[in-house]
Amino acid sequence: MTAHTSRRTNRGPSVGEGPAARRILAGFHAVGARLRSDPSSILVLYFDARRRDARMQHLLAQAAAGAVRCVAADEERLHGMSPEAPHQGVVAQTSGAAPTAQFEDLLDAVGPETFLLVLDGVTDPRNLGACMRTAAAAGVQAVLVPRDRAAAVTTVTAKAAAGATESLPLVTVTNLARAMKDMQDAGIWIVGADGAAPRSLYEVDLTGPRAWALGAEGSGLRRLTRERCDALVHIPMSGGMESLNVSVAAGVCLFETRRQRMLAGGSGG
Amino acid sequence: MTAHTSRRTNRGPSVGEGPAARRILAGFHAVGARLRSDPSSILVLYFDARRRDARMQHLLAQAAAGAVRCVAADEERLHGMSPEAPHQGVVAQTSGAAPTAQFEDLLDAVGPETFLLVLDGVTDPRNLGACMRTAAAAGVQAVLVPRDRAAAVTTVTAKAAAGATESLPLVTVTNLARAMKDMQDAGIWIVGADGAAPRSLYEVDLTGPRAWALGAEGSGLRRLTRERCDALVHIPMSGGMESLNVSVAAGVCLFETRRQRMLAGGSGG
Repeated sequence: MTAHTSRRTNRGPSVGEGPAARRILAGFHAVGARLRSDPSSILVLYFDARRRDARMQHLLAQAAAGAVRCVAADEERLHGMSPEAPHQGVVAQTSGAAPTAQFEDLLDAVGPETFLLVLDGVTDPRNLGACMRTAAAAGVQAVLVPRDRAAAVTTVTAKAAAGATESLPLVTVTNLARAMKDMQDAGIWIVGADGAAPRSLYEVDLTGPRAWALGAEGSGLRRLTRERCDALVHIPMSGGMESLNVSVAAGVCLFETRRQRMLAGGSGG
Repeated sequence: MTAHTSRRTNRGPSVGEGPAARRILAGFHAVGARLRSDPSSILVLYFDARRRDARMQHLLAQAAAGAVRCVAADEERLHGMSPEAPHQGVVAQTSGAAPTAQFEDLLDAVGPETFLLVLDGVTDPRNLGACMRTAAAAGVQAVLVPRDRAAAVTTVTAKAAAGATESLPLVTVTNLARAMKDMQDAGIWIVGADGAAPRSLYEVDLTGPRAWALGAEGSGLRRLTRERCDALVHIPMSGGMESLNVSVAAGVCLFETRRQRMLAGGSGG
């Protein structure tokens, strides 16, 4: 474990960035995304030398191109570094913190392209990661979560996010209802997903500055969050099914937004 | 463990139905769906008596209404019956087999509303379950998988499917390319998702008899499957993200189909 003594500090995060500092990334998606976005922030890339397939070779070539230090490690060591998330034979120890954004900066930057996601009560780290992956792919600029009711960004989240935690800011707010009010005052129209709403998501205008509010599957949006929305819509589902997984619901809502924006001549695909 | 000696056989499946026979369902979604669709097929519902929340009370009330035998069980016993999937304090032992459909029957029933999903190489049982849940919610009539490359329907799949394995037939075919040819001969137009395709899914007509073909994330559709499709389309994604989870991609593709059909005055929401 001598690698632990060879920390580079050129990009060391400042005190106060919390659990995101000195993070472990596991799996091809998460490590590959960091290799593309910021290879210098990877302190050591640990890999299973028994894996000699094309995917591993591609990753190691990327690492070599980025001058990233690679260290062969056995299963026990890889698992020890990433006990919660399946590592697929690759674990990166990084010095970089997750991208951050200040809530106030989001409000200052509101424009016609503003596209945000509010998650209310998504407490499962895997679901949070899957939502972030989906949101990043759909072009969302930031994900907002209430400080006290959200899953923390863990290795499990980063793995499920498949790299999205590397590029998409996760913004925690202390009081979600008040933050939604501030967003509305800044010109953002907030659409909430609610199975009991009379209108479907296909009946609302999703171009212009928009935020989606999604709740945890089962319980949905909390009452205060629901009442704060400018519009509530349902996803039309076939008989018998109660709900969608929250990341799938996010995919349906966020890509419908993307479709409408492409049609309106906005952000292309 | 005396409950094991009190099997009812009124709905016992015939020999040859394979692993689907005498199935264990775990979790509120899967057990709740079976309670709604076919309570008489539940031999025994085991529950954690320490859980006294509203969700458990609602489930037990449903069970009582359906004359289902309920047995309190401790954590060890519940886990022993469902070692792979989290049970949330509720496990059902059922006699019913999963719904089945013959491939030939699907072809005979082709009409303007035909809406199928082909999964090529989705080998992870959790992903298969998540796709089935999404497909059932979108109104898909059957999911087709190649016999040799698909995940088997396990307890993990049933849990991730949140009840969808109770209502949506999973059809296995020996030769996927030949089955796709038969579907096309029967009038079904097959759309494949392929990140490299020039057109987006929003540029094709998804009304009329349609099947979607989706591959595993990462590897995508196999060459033979891809070449067999009538059209290939991509999901327009923001820079940096390689792919979506296959169940999220299914959500985007299948609900876009549903949207177009609702707009065309077809199946409503």
